[in-house]
Parts: sequence; structure tokens; C-alpha cells
Amino acid sequence: MKVVTLGELMMRLTPPNYSRLVQATEFQAVFGGGEANVAASLALFGHKVQFVTKLPENELGTCAIRHLEQQGVQTEFIARGGERIGLYFLEQGISVRPSQVIYDRKHSSFAKACQGDFDWEEIFVGADLFHTSGITLGISDKAREIALTAIKEAKERGITTSFDINYRSKLWGLEEARPAIKSILPYVDICFGGYLDAVKILEINSPVSGKDKAGLYQDLFQQLCATYGVRKVICTFRETLSVTRHSLTGYLYSRGESILATESQTFDILDRVGGGDAFAAGFLHAHLSGWGDEDGLNFALGASVLKHTISGDANLATEKEIQAFVADEGVGGIVR
Amino acid sequence: MKVVTLGELMMRLTPPNYSRLVQATEFQAVFGGGEANVAASLALFGHKVQFVTKLPENELGTCAIRHLEQQGVQTEFIARGGERIGLYFLEQGISVRPSQVIYDRKHSSFAKACQGDFDWEEIFVGADLFHTSGITLGISDKAREIALTAIKEAKERGITTSFDINYRSKLWGLEEARPAIKSILPYVDICFGGYLDAVKILEINSPVSGKDKAGLYQDLFQQLCATYGVRKVICTFRETLSVTRHSLTGYLYSRGESILATESQTFDILDRVGGGDAFAAGFLHAHLSGWGDEDGLNFALGASVLKHTISGDANLATEKEIQAFVADEGVGGIVR
Amino acid sequence: MKVVTLGELMMRLTPPNYSRLVQATEFQAVFGGGEANVAASLALFGHKVQFVTKLPENELGTCAIRHLEQQGVQTEFIARGGERIGLYFLEQGISVRPSQVIYDRKHSSFAKACQGDFDWEEIFVGADLFHTSGITLGISDKAREIALTAIKEAKERGITTSFDINYRSKLWGLEEARPAIKSILPYVDICFGGYLDAVKILEINSPVSGKDKAGLYQDLFQQLCATYGVRKVICTFRETLSVTRHSLTGYLYSRGESILATESQTFDILDRVGGGDAFAAGFLHAHLSGWGDEDGLNFALGASVLKHTISGDANLATEKEIQAFVADEGVGGIVR
Amino acid sequence: MKVVTLGELMMRLTPPNYSRLVQATEFQAVFGGGEANVAASLALFGHKVQFVTKLPENELGTCAIRHLEQQGVQTEFIARGGERIGLYFLEQGISVRPSQVIYDRKHSSFAKACQGDFDWEEIFVGADLFHTSGITLGISDKAREIALTAIKEAKERGITTSFDINYRSKLWGLEEARPAIKSILPYVDICFGGYLDAVKILEINSPVSGKDKAGLYQDLFQQLCATYGVRKVICTFRETLSVTRHSLTGYLYSRGESILATESQTFDILDRVGGGDAFAAGFLHAHLSGWGDEDGLNFALGASVLKHTISGDANLATEKEIQAFVADEGVGGIVR
Amino acid sequence: MKVVTLGELMMRLTPPNYSRLVQATEFQAVFGGGEANVAASLALFGHKVQFVTKLPENELGTCAIRHLEQQGVQTEFIARGGERIGLYFLEQGISVRPSQVIYDRKHSSFAKACQGDFDWEEIFVGADLFHTSGITLGISDKAREIALTAIKEAKERGITTSFDINYRSKLWGLEEARPAIKSILPYVDICFGGYLDAVKILEINSPVSGKDKAGLYQDLFQQLCATYGVRKVICTFRETLSVTRHSLTGYLYSRGESILATESQTFDILDRVGGGDAFAAGFLHAHLSGWGDEDGLNFALGASVLKHTISGDANLATEKEIQAFVADEGVGGIVR
Amino acid sequence: MKVVTLGELMMRLTPPNYSRLVQATEFQAVFGGGEANVAASLALFGHKVQFVTKLPENELGTCAIRHLEQQGVQTEFIARGGERIGLYFLEQGISVRPSQVIYDRKHSSFAKACQGDFDWEEIFVGADLFHTSGITLGISDKAREIALTAIKEAKERGITTSFDINYRSKLWGLEEARPAIKSILPYVDICFGGYLDAVKILEINSPVSGKDKAGLYQDLFQQLCATYGVRKVICTFRETLSVTRHSLTGYLYSRGESILATESQTFDILDRVGGGDAFAAGFLHAHLSGWGDEDGLNFALGASVLKHTISGDANLATEKEIQAFVADEGVGGIVR
Repeated sequence: MKVVTLGELMMRLTPPNYSRLVQATEFQAVFGGGEANVAASLALFGHKVQFVTKLPENELGTCAIRHLEQQGVQTEFIARGGERIGLYFLEQGISVRPSQVIYDRKHSSFAKACQGDFDWEEIFVGADLFHTSGITLGISDKAREIALTAIKEAKERGITTSFDINYRSKLWGLEEARPAIKSILPYVDICFGGYLDAVKILEINSPVSGKDKAGLYQDLFQQLCATYGVRKVICTFRETLSVTRHSLTGYLYSRGESILATESQTFDILDRVGGGDAFAAGFLHAHLSGWGDEDGLNFALGASVLKHTISGDANLATEKEIQAFVADEGVGGIVR
Repeated sequence: MKVVTLGELMMRLTPPNYSRLVQATEFQAVFGGGEANVAASLALFGHKVQFVTKLPENELGTCAIRHLEQQGVQTEFIARGGERIGLYFLEQGISVRPSQVIYDRKHSSFAKACQGDFDWEEIFVGADLFHTSGITLGISDKAREIALTAIKEAKERGITTSFDINYRSKLWGLEEARPAIKSILPYVDICFGGYLDAVKILEINSPVSGKDKAGLYQDLFQQLCATYGVRKVICTFRETLSVTRHSLTGYLYSRGESILATESQTFDILDRVGGGDAFAAGFLHAHLSGWGDEDGLNFALGASVLKHTISGDANLATEKEIQAFVADEGVGGIVR
Repeated sequence: MKVVTLGELMMRLTPPNYSRLVQATEFQAVFGGGEANVAASLALFGHKVQFVTKLPENELGTCAIRHLEQQGVQTEFIARGGERIGLYFLEQGISVRPSQVIYDRKHSSFAKACQGDFDWEEIFVGADLFHTSGITLGISDKAREIALTAIKEAKERGITTSFDINYRSKLWGLEEARPAIKSILPYVDICFGGYLDAVKILEINSPVSGKDKAGLYQDLFQQLCATYGVRKVICTFRETLSVTRHSLTGYLYSRGESILATESQTFDILDRVGGGDAFAAGFLHAHLSGWGDEDGLNFALGASVLKHTISGDANLATEKEIQAFVADEGVGGIVR
Repeated sequence: MKVVTLGELMMRLTPPNYSRLVQATEFQAVFGGGEANVAASLALFGHKVQFVTKLPENELGTCAIRHLEQQGVQTEFIARGGERIGLYFLEQGISVRPSQVIYDRKHSSFAKACQGDFDWEEIFVGADLFHTSGITLGISDKAREIALTAIKEAKERGITTSFDINYRSKLWGLEEARPAIKSILPYVDICFGGYLDAVKILEINSPVSGKDKAGLYQDLFQQLCATYGVRKVICTFRETLSVTRHSLTGYLYSRGESILATESQTFDILDRVGGGDAFAAGFLHAHLSGWGDEDGLNFALGASVLKHTISGDANLATEKEIQAFVADEGVGGIVR
Repeated sequence: MKVVTLGELMMRLTPPNYSRLVQATEFQAVFGGGEANVAASLALFGHKVQFVTKLPENELGTCAIRHLEQQGVQTEFIARGGERIGLYFLEQGISVRPSQVIYDRKHSSFAKACQGDFDWEEIFVGADLFHTSGITLGISDKAREIALTAIKEAKERGITTSFDINYRSKLWGLEEARPAIKSILPYVDICFGGYLDAVKILEINSPVSGKDKAGLYQDLFQQLCATYGVRKVICTFRETLSVTRHSLTGYLYSRGESILATESQTFDILDRVGGGDAFAAGFLHAHLSGWGDEDGLNFALGASVLKHTISGDANLATEKEIQAFVADEGVGGIVR
Repeated sequence: MKVVTLGELMMRLTPPNYSRLVQATEFQAVFGGGEANVAASLALFGHKVQFVTKLPENELGTCAIRHLEQQGVQTEFIARGGERIGLYFLEQGISVRPSQVIYDRKHSSFAKACQGDFDWEEIFVGADLFHTSGITLGISDKAREIALTAIKEAKERGITTSFDINYRSKLWGLEEARPAIKSILPYVDICFGGYLDAVKILEINSPVSGKDKAGLYQDLFQQLCATYGVRKVICTFRETLSVTRHSLTGYLYSRGESILATESQTFDILDRVGGGDAFAAGFLHAHLSGWGDEDGLNFALGASVLKHTISGDANLATEKEIQAFVADEGVGGIVR
């Protein structure tokens, strides 16, 4: 299937070995960003994926593109130009010490991109799925306009649209995020988002607390779907036992029904970034493959859990590996 | 005591920091192999150990020999020649992501060695113990013949013989392994092997399931010893809580009696490879030192557990450290 | 506030990636020492801190000073001269394998320093707090004399004095330590030390065992304070679940009252060294800031726990981070 | 323009920092091979390049493909299967110490590939240029047959054919190489090869020595072109001042005329491997771009010289950088 | 002596081992900037140096300050706030491959600093020398205004002023630079700048070409001093034999007299950045120490040459080392 | 042949990538020392070599021994005990920046060894050659006594004795060195030492300056041999073009005749340490192999030059490689 994702690709700079930023004398560089991570994962699952963004006309922009191509993502619709590539510095936490992110993404080529940089007519030829996220809406007014244009163009062409709310408080405030998110949801078919998104951003009234968790969610997401015409809402419940040990499960609402992932997972973490993107990509793969929602949810959860054990933003777990994990095969040993 | 072990020494190439193979831009190189690991451990325990193999006449062969000598293993009976050194690529798993091994050991110097490469008359002068494993039987027909010759020559000279079944499904199928393993067992005094080996390879009928674990094992290994004249069978029970957290205990059968290690151990893992070899070497050291079976089993278990916390194939835990661990002394603190 | 700490600064050489010393081909170098670690932590909390020691007139001495200055510690009273900088080699343990320390600090510039190297008149101008430890007493006769002189000079000037008993069995025996520790305590206001210090070094009779832990401690430390005129005794209770997973709580005795930290903490460890120094610095900061004992104890415990997740000897956790940890805010997530 | 190159892609393992192989504890891994290097260079120059080979169905094969895609090379005609990826170990020499190569490429997937693995009908659709080399002929009988088939198929379709003689004495002897090289030359339009190739492999009589170098070459290559119908022969003259300092110039023969590069270059070397491939790619780019032979030769020489300053097998110098170098612009400074 | 320097401090990110930017997977991070480099060098020579800039209120700003403090530079007048720290990416060239710089310094805290961030009254207390450069003028209008204010305030207080023209074409064009440079020169006592600066920026007529180099310079700089009231002009002549091998000499004009450095130097380069700053700092140190111009020029040249052999932006060569180099003592051997 | 060498083995700690000591955050660790380097080289040439020293009973001592064994050197006569292993810190110079050594070898196990640690009766069984150096004489009074005892014991047994004067000004002054060197020379057969040694230490009158270099040397060494009964004196002439580019030739005096190496060599340097030891080992190998003096001198020079291109203290160039270098074969290319 052909997929298009739109967003910013940043260079992530991480001091090695759980070093703090104030101690840093070297940084490991990878490239990532919510929608680029979804693109990489879907490309690995065998889809033809175009990642759309804007990158500067310098070696760092070229390096970013080489990185995408290494992951099998197609890059011909990436605009070049503008001032700089967005950066972020990640201090990896461990045990009880939280991770820290310093964004240095303002004034980036993508943040200052304009509508004319992207020819959706051409980009969407043959496309089956379009995916973007709330991060793109929060980057800049221009990025927000581009994302809205893109999702409308997709919708008009009958392309399935997917959107991950992904609210980032370091990017924008709730006041700014609310109208933007609300304005895009009417064009969204598949929405990734959680309890806090529904309550704080979409201002849906939280149901009475007498209900159990799944019940609460069903109420919330029923309203969400009813209000905006969204077809499916999918999210994870995450419990943080420590910075590097989490518990995760998955929940899906569709047409009045709630599904919980068959098993919740508790696991140690090598790299936390991209766990949500791997979840989204996992579900979208299942959807594109025509699997049922329950299988899709379990696959998405497995994809997300495995991502947490892989260094870098992108999920390098293959479909086969994820399915083996979901089926609980051979987890502990070395096959040799 | 003088020990001779026979097997293949491979170069192991591991991407650092839990990187996946598809991400690899560098590899850490160590040398290892089941019988070489046993040799290194016994040399560290103070025995005079000859490791017998064949390595190519190039710098990689020389590098492998330097590595053995660094570990105090004697190398004068290592034949040189042939095409290449065996390699394997190890992707180290973590948390819920399993480790992966890619063998690239076909056509190796040892796989294509011939009987004339080894003069057992000379090699076995003064030897007290000979050790090899099922890996050597599975490498090639030639390696199998050499191993059989060696164990027979050892047996004839009254040298204690030790054999670790170590079935590797990536090397050979059960159909091929069965007759080979069965043909060597009559020459074996001390056998390392587990439940699955007994049932699937030796085709011993599993006892009725009403019994407890130790009872099941006693039945199985009694038959094994009776059939092949083996004197002792020793194995571990391993429970994998995650890829990097295991639980381990030890079991020994000898002359109708079963012994369980005094305490089972649960521990985090730094490097899983060589855990079984450290166990075997631990027991063989106890045996060579004339310790009783129970002490030997506890020492073997301690050796194996500590090996899991040491990087590389070889166990670098000293006798003193293992004994302190078995006696549960000072585990948590830094002595300073 | 202005703080003066006195002690030895050593170069610490650690093989990376949990490598054993016998495997080492490279070492990571940091500088540390009990009182220098306290100095670094207090400087980070915003105090003006002078660290007093003696270092050789060579590039290694200069490198050590640059390291202190990088941490905001003031260095103008560091004497230069003597033979060498003290070193120690640290093998970092993991899981069930203990850490190892090899001290190579004999004959160091500080061990051979003399009274004339330090002009306390000048050093103590404007000082509010003086801190040293039992390590300094154990380094050499000369270091002991210097420490005694310093604490007496501090006391005479009405400067609050702080002392961490910090008994190191690799430095000196109990026989030697007892009179030295006993001779300094009469000049100490705030004492960091635990049960074993009180019983084994100070030879205070352990109270009858019918009491609970806090009761036992109250008895012991009441005697300690009564005998030596110490105002507060503070310590941690540490439980070692494995080499890299500990449980920690804090206890304080002052004027007949015992306080336990509000919550004990269980956590994984990145770097164990300096955990006690971070605890001391945390409490001293609270004291200098005029916080109450309970807040001080909780802050000290939080500082110590966070230090265990930071590489190197020095605690790089800021006051704000420690307070967020104590208040249990946002531990699990990435703020982004 | 569309280009197809055929050959083997190997994993190259190099100890860092000029370490010798016998000292190696880690290896840097890149992927390369004569024709793959030409492909990477031409892709960077903006051509659409298909690299054709066979790689195993494992993570190493996948890693190799990701590497090619990162370089913008297209990989859809790479067959998967067979036993292993070819490897070579490179010890980088320096000063007066020569570099060493240990090939471990026997039994590779490409060496054992068969005609059915490649559908030239499909591969050559729209192709303008086909390139392969003597290395491919030397790998195995099967590889030789595949290369011959490919070049004949190319020729039949009117595609320009390019061939680099690239004799490797560690792959095959002269006796074996002679008929193979001679059998392919009749299908070659552009031939990269030097004096020794002409004399030792093609057994062309060296002209009388009274002539100058260019004269000697003209005689030789005139015969070569006349005998085999080759249109152009291009080569470098290399003088080795030390292992890491060379002098290089370029020579071209075409239709009875000899051209020497405008300037010879003397330069320090960072990575020697791929210098010849960069030269070939440089010339082919000029040819595809319709530049004249002299400009092409100068560009090829510049490309080769710059490659020697870039780590890895592939030339990462852009057309713009090579042209600036040829025009001798701004070599010494930093533009900032 | 007390020195104040004003400018921007950037994080420099360099891929290791002469890797190209498009290959980069890790970066080495140091901090530097023209005036910060001068500050570091003068601090190492024993002066009390305040570096004045503005850095963001985040861990990267803190890391930058820690770095300055490690070099003994005083930081209490560094303003905190603004958006980001300036960055630059440095691709280190080698042999014939030039170095590349990608600036990412727009919108930095210093570029957007305002006059109110700096209290020159307080900063200049006791100062003997003020130094800034043309880079600061080129960063932004605000930075230019701050620099002008600062130099005027210095001048008013009778503080010696030093200015390095340091034209950077990637920062601003000649049109923009001309009036800015011309407006600051009337306040400058000591000016570092060369032939091109005088001709292209200051538009001084180049003297007739019949003269020798020193003669040409004397004419130029005489006009420069006459026009702007500058007391001394100092510059280097640099010849680039290759990217990593340069030849350097020094020239000084003062009161109608020209001095050439006693000896020109030819040398291999480890790190080119900061060579000019080391030169300036070397001369300023000589000036502050009351040495004569000739000794100062030779010391400056020696400082610059040694800097080229030291990794990072800052010159770590001590006065003693530079003097030994100037006196040509023991260059080749190891003292041991 | 069997060889015994006596001396100290130190851990050498070198910051990587030409970093200065004041910048160091990590160190590469190798083990070396003059006589250990000779031992390693001779072991690589195929001799059976015992290295005699004393090392502490800790992991660093064990690590040192493992290192020797890796090089094929035999270690059973190494005494264990004492306080510490000697260390030295090496700052590697480059271009015009000299290398720096900080010795930290006082109080080492070997410096405090006693006669009873070594049983020369047993050590010298079957020995053909004994080698030590002036470094050992300079380490301590005890080391000097041990060396004198050893050489006398060797001489008594008719073992050839070899001595490298190797004066180290950081170890001892000329006043102290003179009598020590003079007292050992009567027991020396083969002496490595140069012009300055003869003039400044042995106080031989320098011949009149009218003669050429070889003539001067012949006069000097004739006197040296006559005075002390030394059979051969061998030395290098070293010219330092830069810190990392030297020119080297060899000179030998024996029985009234002078020999100069056939060719002098000019070369770039990767690691300067051990160049003299490689020279000595090269000559001793030639001597033990019964080659003539001229061949021996050329081989020694080749060995030394190649050592300069190899990282670490020990020469890893094989006999075959050295002979190829001396015969000037294939220096520039890669054999592939």
C-alpha cells in the first residue's frame, strides 16, 4: 500500500551512556520525528512510504535524507530550502532520573515552509493512507496550514486519514492547541489520542468516575467520534514503574465498541522515544493489511513494546518479530 | 591438573550498546566457542589447559591464538591452515527483545580439518581430563570424526572424558544429531545435558508426569546413564524472566542419586553467551579438585551466574570470587 | 553561604561498559574524593565553596583543578607540589558481580602535605561551614594532623563543622581508626555516620535488641552526641537487592529526637560512587538554607538517590530536580 | 541517465586508528565493492543507478541493502539467498607500513549466484550504461558467466558498456584471469586498465623502451583497442611516496589519440580503498554528461584524489566539490 | 592583568576521524568563539579574564559556562536568557579536501541580547584590556550596538582596546561589514587584520606593486593607523600547502615601523580553528606583560602554530611551552 | 633460542586522538617498558622469551601478565607482591608539539623488589641471551642491585649479555647514572648506546672534530669497547624533522670496524615509544640467528622504523614484514 506522512524531521543529539547534558562532550546523532518514525516503520513493514517535509539545502539536510532512504522511506517530495534543520537534545534518563528534552527547532526549514513547497496533486497519486500529528500543528502557523491543506486534499481523494494528537507542552500551550486540534479532527478517520487529550484539549466532559477505566474511555471516545466523525480512536495506557521500566497496554474504540489488548506488557526500556509512533505505525499496518481491530491492537502494542528496546527514534522490529513477540515465542533465549 | 579441550574457536562480532545488526557500523570482536570457553575458565582456575583446534594461517588466526594465550590457555597443538576462521554475528537482545545469532562458520579451517592435523599421542601426554561438545559433532563430518577419535584415544588412556550435548538447531537437525550424539556417549564419563536433550535427541521416554521435577529428571538420567555408561549427568534449569533477567538452578545425577543446587539464583544479565560453558568448567574444576558433587554443583552454578555479568564469551570470575558468591559474601557493596 | 571542605582529590580510572579490570584496554577518567564531591554538590546548589587539598605541579594536577573549576568549586587554596596525584581504579560491578576498587593513593601530594601548605587564617575568612571526613584522617599521619588543625581552627572561629566518619577498611584498620575518629569528634557539630561506625569504631554499646531499628539508633546516637558534644547525627540505611539495585532510607538524630525519611526509595544504579557524599551535601545544603531537619533529611535522601543515576563521583542533580523527585513529580515521563 | 552496475558487495571490517589486525578488539564496518562503489558515486552525481548482486536473506544482507539505499543506489534487482555475505578485513597501513587485506569472500551468495537470479530483460529497461569489472570475473565461474551474459545483453540493447580490468592476485592467478578478461573485452566500449594489465593479462607486446611513458601507453592501448574493438582506455599512473602519500595522474587513449590529465596531484591519504572506482565513476559521469575526454579525465582524476581523503569505500565528493578541486579553488581554507 | 572580552560562545559539533557531515552518526562537542578563545588563552597565561556574552537558561547554556570555567575564564557577567545557543557544525578537511562550516547561530541568545543585559560600569572595574572582533559586529544589529557601546565605555575609562577584524563571509556581506568595521576602528588601539581587510573592507588603496611584501603592508597599515588612530596592526601571512599543512609568519606595524617574525613556520595541522585567536591572545599577553613588539610577535606566532596542533577551539599551550617552541628547544623528542 | 630480559613493566595511559593531558577524559591503556618491549619483539620473532620483573598481587598486575602472555612472552618467573604497578602518562605530540611523559613509577613493586624475589639459577636454565637496560639501573637501588646480580650470573654461565644504556633524565641525574652504568658495562657483550651516552655518561673524550660522523663514532666506541671489554656497540642516528616525522639510520662498531646501515629512512610516526627497543630486539634477533652484522643492522633499522608505525609499546612487525621492508618490496600498495 502507498502511504504519505507529513511532519518535521529533526536531528536528535544524545549524549552517550546516560551522560547528562551538562557533562556532554559528544553526541550521538540520529534523525527522527513523529511522522518520520511512522514512515520508517511502515516502510519496514513493506509499504511504499513517502515522507513529506522541508529540509535545508546543506549537508545536514542531505544527511537527514540519506537516513530516511536507508530506512527505505521515499524522499522525492521533500522540499529543500530554508534556514536550518530542527534539532533536539535528548538527555536519556535512567532509574529515577527523568529524561530531558531541549528543543531547538524554531526557525527550521519546515516551520517556515509554505504551501507552494508541496504539490499534493502529485504527492497523493495512488496513496491509500495519509498520516500526520499534532506536533506538526504546533510547529508554526505555516506548518499548521500545510497540514490542514494536506488532510483536506487527502480526504477529498478518499484517502484514509490518520492523526496522532501528540500534544507537546514544550511546543505550544493548551489555549493554542485546542482550536487547532479541533479544526483538523473533522478530517480524521483514525485518531491516536488518550484520556488527557480528550479532556484537556477537546474539552469533552469526563464521564462520572463510578465506572471502570474501559468504561470511562468508552464514554469519552464515543463523544469524540460523535462530535468529529472520527472512525476509530486508539491509545495506550502507560504506567511508569521507573524511568526505564514501564507497563503498557492498548485500547481501541470503534463503532461503539471498546477493545483492550489481550495482554499488558511490563518491560525495561533502552530508548523511550518513538514508542508512540511505533504503536501508531503498528496499528496502521494492521489496518492497511485488513486485519481485525483486535489483532491490530495487539500488533500495535507489540510493536510499541519492542520499539522501547531499540536505540534511535525508529522502530526496527520486523513484522515477523512483532508477531513472534505477540505470540510469546522464544522471548528469553538466543536462537543458535 | 592437565586438561585438553577440542572444538572450534570463532570470532564473535557484536554491535555495541545493544545496537541491532541492521544498524551496525562497528563490531566488538572477541573470540569464543564452547570448548575454548571451558578451556579459558579452567586455565583461570589454575589448570594447565591445551585447547585443540585448527585455525587459518593468517592474522585472524594469529589474533585468535593471542587471545587464547592472554587467557592462559596453551596453544601448541593448534593446527594452522585451511580457508578461514569461523565467525558469528551476535545481536545482543535486551528486555523483551531476543538475542540473534548469525553463524558464518561453514568452510572454516576446523570444519575442514583432517585426522592428520592432530597427534593425540602427543596431545594426551599427562592429561587428566578431555572435554568436547555436541557443537563439534555438528560442525562437519570431519570434525565429528576427529572428536570421536579424540574421545576414544582419551578413554583408552584412562583420561576422564567430559561432554556437553549442547544441541544447536542452527547447526544441524535432530535427525542428524541423534546418531552422532548417541555414538559418542558410550565414551563419556561426565555428561552435561538437559531434559530436552534426553527426550528429543536420545529418545529416552519421558517418565510419567505425576512426579515432581527432580523425580522426572532422576528417571530420565538414570536411563541415560544405564544405556550409555555415563557416570554423571549435570544440567541447569533456566527460567527466562526477560531476555536480560534469568533464574538459574543446577541439578546433578550420579549413581542413582539426584542433587539440586542449594539455592537458585535470579539475576540481571550483561552477556549471556558462555553461561553454559562456565557451568561446565565450574563443575569440572570441582571434579578435578576432588570436591564432592554438591559443592561442585553449587560452584558450577555460581560460576555460571557470575559469567552472565561478564562481557565476552569467557568466564573471568576467579575461584575466590565464585566461592564468595556461593557463600553470599559482600555482594552488594564496594569494598574500599 | 561560604563553605570549606578539606580532603584528597583522586583521579578515578574506570574501564567502560562494565568491563573487568583484567580486560581493560581503556579507562574513563574522572576526578573525585569524598570532600571534593561534597564541595561540587554544594557549589551546584549555589554556595561559594573552597576545596582545600594538595596536588602535584604537573598536568594531572592541573587537569584535576580544571575539573573542579568546571564544577564551580573554587580552587585558590589548593597547594601544589609533592610527588603524585592519588589514583584509584574502579571496576564497576553489575547484577550479582560486586564492584572492586584498587587504591593507588599512597605517597600522594596530599598524603605528604604539611601544615605549612595551608593558611587557615586566610582560608576561613567569611566561612560558614567546614566539612571533612574520616577518609582524610586515614590517608596519612600528616593528613590527619592537618584535618585536626583545620577543624579546631574552624571551631575557634565559630564555623559550623561537619564530619563524615566514612570508614574505609582498605585505608586503615579499626585499631588505627578508633583513636583518630574519637579525637576529632569533640570538634564536630554535624556528624554523618551509621550503626557500624558507632559500635565498631566509637565502641558505643549497642542497645538491647528488643527495640526496633529506630529505637536502636536513637539509643546509640544519643550516647554518641552525649559523649562527644555532637549536635546531629545523620545516616542512611542501605539494603542491597543486587549490586545495581539498592533500597535507601535516611535517619537523623538531634536533641533527643529521631526522624526517619518520609519515604524509602528503591532504585537501579548507574554509578554508586559518591552516593554518601551527595547525601551529606544534600543535608548540609538544607542546613545552610535554614530548612528544618525533616525537610533536610528528605532532601538529602533524594540527592543521594539521584546521584546513583549520574555517572562520575559528583552529584549533578540540581536543587530543583531533587525537590521534584522528593515531591514525586514527573518521574516517569519525558517532558517534551 | 540510467546506469546498471553488477558485482559483489562485501562487508569491510577495519580496525580503527591504524590498529593492526592482531591487535583488533573492534572493527568499523562499511560495505563496498568495485562496482557498488561506482554505483554510489554515480548516484551521488545524480544518475539513477541500479546495483545488481546477490545477498543472503539475513540481517547482514539487509544491512548491506540499507547501506546502498542510504547512498541513493537502487536495489530492487538485488537477488536474496545463498549462504553468506562476502567479507574482507582491511588493516590500514600508514607511513611505511603497507595495508593488508584478508579476503573472506568465498562461498558468498554472489559467488554462488546463478543465471536465473537476474532478469536482464527487466533490469536493462531504459539503461544507458552498464559497468562491471574483472573482480566479478574472478569471484567464481558462476559470477563470470553472469557477467558475460549481462554484458552481452547490454551490448545487444545498444547500452554503452564499461569494464574495469581490476586484476586482484588474491582472487585468481594470471593463468585463470587471461582467458576470462580476453573473452569479455570484445563486448567492452570503455575500458579502465593499465600498463601491467595490457602486458601481463592481455599479453600485448610492450613497445620498445626508447619511447616516453605516454608514447609507450599509446602503442599498447592502440593494440588493445584494435584487437578487442574497445573505444577508450583510461588509466591512472600512481606513484607511492609512502603508504599514505601518493602521486596520481590520469591517461586516456581514444581513436589514436592520447590525453594526459592537465595536472598530476600529490596528496595525503585517509582511505585508499575505492580510489580507482572513484576514478572510473568520475569518467563515466563525464561521459554520460557529454563532456569531452580531457574534461572527463581531469574530473575523473579529481574525483579519485578526493576519494582518497574520504573514509569508507564510496566517494562522497560531489560534482561541485570535484570541479572546485579541479579548478583549484579554495583548497586550503575553511569557508566560514 | 584584568581582561574583558565580548562575543558569542557557540557549541561546535564535529564528526570524529575526519568523517564527512553526510556520514556523521556522532559529533564531538566543544565550545568556542573568537573572543572566548582569546579569553581562554589569556586565562591560561595567568590573567584574570571576564568573558561577556549571553547564553540561554538551559542545560546547554550551563554546559557552555562550565566549559569556560574549566578553562579558568570568569563568567559572572554572562547574561542568561533568550532562545538558544549558537551552534556550528565543522567538517574537518584533510589533505586536499577543505574543511566545511555550517553555521546555525541565527536567533541565538547573544544575537538577540540587548544593551540592558550588560552593565559595563561594573564589568570594567579594574580592567586593563578589552577585546572584541568583527564577528560580533556581524552577528546582528543588536550585537553590533553592544560591541560599540562596550568599546566606547572601555575607551572612556582608558582601557586598552583590541579588535580582530575577522571578516566572515558566511555571516555578512562586504557592503554590510564596511560601515560597521569603519565605525568601530576609531576606538581601537590594537588591531588584528590583514591585507584583504585593509583593501576590501577599509577600502584603503593598495600601494603600487613594485614593492616587496613588507613594503606593501607598511604602506597599507600606515594609512590604516593614520585614518583611524589605531596604534598597532598585527597580522599573519598564511600559505596553505594543503588543507592540513600550512606555513605561517607574522607581521606587525607600529609607529611607522614594520616587524616580521624572526622565523616563518611550516607545520602539520590537527585543528585549524582558533589559530587566529591564539595569535591575538599571544600578542595581547606579550603586550600586557610589557614585552617588546618583536618578542610579542614571535610569541604570538608560536602560540598560533602550537594551537594548530591542539584539538578544540582553545589554545592549551602554556607560556612556557610557547617560549620553548620559539626558542626551538626539544621539539622532536619525548622528554622522559 | 631462549632469552631472558629483566626490567619494569608499566601501565601506559595515553589520551586518545592527540588529546592533551589537561583535556583527558579517557585513557588508552597498554603495558610496556624497555626490556618488556624487547621481550615481546623477540617472542614474535620465534624465540622463547622469559620476562623477569615484579608486579603487584592485584588485578592490574594480572592484567599486565595477561598482556605479556598475549604477546607470547613467558611469565613464570615474574614475582608478585609489593605496593603498586608503575604507571606513566603519555601525551602524544604531533607536528611541532612535543610528546610529554609523566612518570608515576616510584614505589612500584619492581622498584622495591629484593634479590630473593628472583632465582637466577632456575631462570637462566638453557638461556642464550640476557638483556637489560639503564632504565632498570635508574629505577631504584634495589633494581640496580638485582640487575647487577643478574648480569653477573648470566656472564658466569656464558650467556651472551646485552645492555641498552637508555639514559632517562626524568629517572636520575648524570651524577647518579655514571657510576651505575660504568659498573655494569664490564659484564656487557652487546651494548646499545649513542654519542651522548659515551661522552656524557662514560666520560670518554670526544675525538677531534675534524673527522666525519662515522669517524667520530669509531673513535668513541673503540675507546668504549677497549675500556669495558664490550664486543659490539650499536646505535641509531635520529633526525627529527617534526615531532611526527623522523629520519633514522643505524651504526655498529665491532672489532675495530664501523658499519652504517645501507639506507637511512625518513618516515611519519604513529607511535614513537618503543622505537629503540624494536631496534635492539631486531639486532638481537639477527645476532641469535647468526646473521652478519650488516644484515643485523639493516634488520634492526627496519624493525625500528616499522615500530614507529604501530600503536603501543611493542613492535608487532613480523620478521617477514621487516625483511620485505628492508628489501623495499611493495611498500606503497595494498596487496589484494
